[in-house]
Amino acid sequence: MTAPDPSHIMQVASGYGVSRALLSAVGLGLYTRLAEGSMTLDEIMRDFGLLRRPTMDFLDLLVSAELLGREGDGEGARYHNTETTAAFLDRNKPAYIGGIIELWDKRNYRFWADITEACRTGKAQNETKSAGKPFFETLYAEPARLEAFMDAMNGSSINNFEKFARVFPFERYRTLTDIGGADALLSRLVAAAHPHIRCTSFDLPVVTEIATRKITAAGLAKRIEAVAGDFFSDPLPSADVITMGMILHDWNLGRKKLLVKKAYDALPPGGAFVAIEALIDDARRTNTFGLFLSLNMLIEFGDAFDFTGSEFIAWCREAGFSGFEVIPLVGPSSAAIAYK
Amino acid sequence: MTAPDPSHIMQVASGYGVSRALLSAVGLGLYTRLAEGSMTLDEIMRDFGLLRRPTMDFLDLLVSAELLGREGDGEGARYHNTETTAAFLDRNKPAYIGGIIELWDKRNYRFWADITEACRTGKAQNETKSAGKPFFETLYAEPARLEAFMDAMNGSSINNFEKFARVFPFERYRTLTDIGGADALLSRLVAAAHPHIRCTSFDLPVVTEIATRKITAAGLAKRIEAVAGDFFSDPLPSADVITMGMILHDWNLGRKKLLVKKAYDALPPGGAFVAIEALIDDARRTNTFGLFLSLNMLIEFGDAFDFTGSEFIAWCREAGFSGFEVIPLVGPSSAAIAYK
Repeated sequence: MTAPDPSHIMQVASGYGVSRALLSAVGLGLYTRLAEGSMTLDEIMRDFGLLRRPTMDFLDLLVSAELLGREGDGEGARYHNTETTAAFLDRNKPAYIGGIIELWDKRNYRFWADITEACRTGKAQNETKSAGKPFFETLYAEPARLEAFMDAMNGSSINNFEKFARVFPFERYRTLTDIGGADALLSRLVAAAHPHIRCTSFDLPVVTEIATRKITAAGLAKRIEAVAGDFFSDPLPSADVITMGMILHDWNLGRKKLLVKKAYDALPPGGAFVAIEALIDDARRTNTFGLFLSLNMLIEFGDAFDFTGSEFIAWCREAGFSGFEVIPLVGPSSAAIAYK
Repeated sequence: MTAPDPSHIMQVASGYGVSRALLSAVGLGLYTRLAEGSMTLDEIMRDFGLLRRPTMDFLDLLVSAELLGREGDGEGARYHNTETTAAFLDRNKPAYIGGIIELWDKRNYRFWADITEACRTGKAQNETKSAGKPFFETLYAEPARLEAFMDAMNGSSINNFEKFARVFPFERYRTLTDIGGADALLSRLVAAAHPHIRCTSFDLPVVTEIATRKITAAGLAKRIEAVAGDFFSDPLPSADVITMGMILHDWNLGRKKLLVKKAYDALPPGGAFVAIEALIDDARRTNTFGLFLSLNMLIEFGDAFDFTGSEFIAWCREAGFSGFEVIPLVGPSSAAIAYK
């Protein structure tokens, strides 16, 4: 029998520091800059306006966490991207996942300071605490901010949408409507992979303007239409497949059930409703990221939450759906599917 | 060749959430309460005044990170301590390490939101930003706060001090002075383990009052004296061994060197100066915790920092010391020793 060891506790307890340093490095654009070539400590200090001792500790902390490479020790050592940071944290790479991390750097890390209060009150702990405006309202008021948000969401969704386009049996269907389609990323990926599919990307007018631009740029204007509407107050455009990518988790239980019901109403018999989310495992024991996202929804919206496949199936069954399936996508994400 | 995988990046980037949840759980006293017996979700909600959905996510996030046990799934499931959380996160256990975690819950997590600013300005990012009072000054103004702080520090030091008392060759020496001795924890452990050693625990008057009480309670008043003084303005009480536990890292380079010089002056030829710290590895590649603590010193004091064994040896050599040794203690901590 070995004596209990506090190292796991201390590693997680102090883990906010390593996490915070990574958010800062992404927020500063360090990895994007390092994609141009390795840099000495002096060069990094000069380029980013940082002081020596803090910067040494900041960079070497990332080295120790395998989130930065360093050739040599001491004076003259050169910092460089790792294979992984080069692939995913350079803003100029297609696989950039740093958008969501930039948001966490600017916003969410700070809001999580009040997680205990959120668990006590069920109230959002973001900008709405002081300014009083709901998150999406603030977002839609500023086009540049909105596009940055969509880029951030796309960075965390693109790998899942690509896999979904590849593994879902699209040969059985002819039309798809993506609800809350943002800049039509999911529609563009599905239409590009399946020439027989016609897509509708449904979102608010301020968003469909951006979507139309991106659809045209991709040469897909003949097979994807960006349709403006409000998914709560308008009926959903009918299609053989209705998708919602990271939409359901933004809302409370009543609104989730309303969206499920509206998807049911917009589908023909045999149609499929697909929710792409970081589904929490049914036993709620393994998907740390899904549980983290759920608390992030608490922080952002107060009554919103992520959910398990079982919960999704129960809501869909209640709405009238009769067949169910969960397809694992990338990492902690899945496609939960209900057939009408 | 395998394709690069973003999961390590995403795990660290979202790691602030898991870390924050652990700080909250320790701050709430959840683990101490669970030491009395396992609890259902309803019981935890009622005892801590928390709401259902946030609390489910909060607790199951800790389950997924192996920082909480749960027997059963769904309704009626009972949450309980793991072997490790029972040993180290129950306030009533001697090995409690939660004191420092409580400080991080109340203070440091929030301050780290401004780590980028700290790296730019070299300025502390704690209460001093608004109130203007240095950390230790605020601390000493309130006895209850001071004792809580000492308890917190003791929780992270006790295992190191115990190992130091065991592995250091005390048979060669007769007297020890512990500089910044707080409530005399190190002196009490050394005196208890080595009946031939006489100790002096040196700290500010407000602190030695508390130390004297604890020394008397331990029945060690004949062999430990708590001496009041300021380690910058007063000479250090002479002894064969001078120790400083987590003292040097609180200060800037000039003050560190001054303390090293004062230790040299207070030792006889052959005497030993011992700094117990989370020494950063010389290559600055592996001791993540030491680098984290160093940035924590930046956050607290602006110009303070943790250091490597090589740095310690260089400062000691400059002060006149001639022999050096580093003894690993527990986890990321070491005793750096300089012989006069």
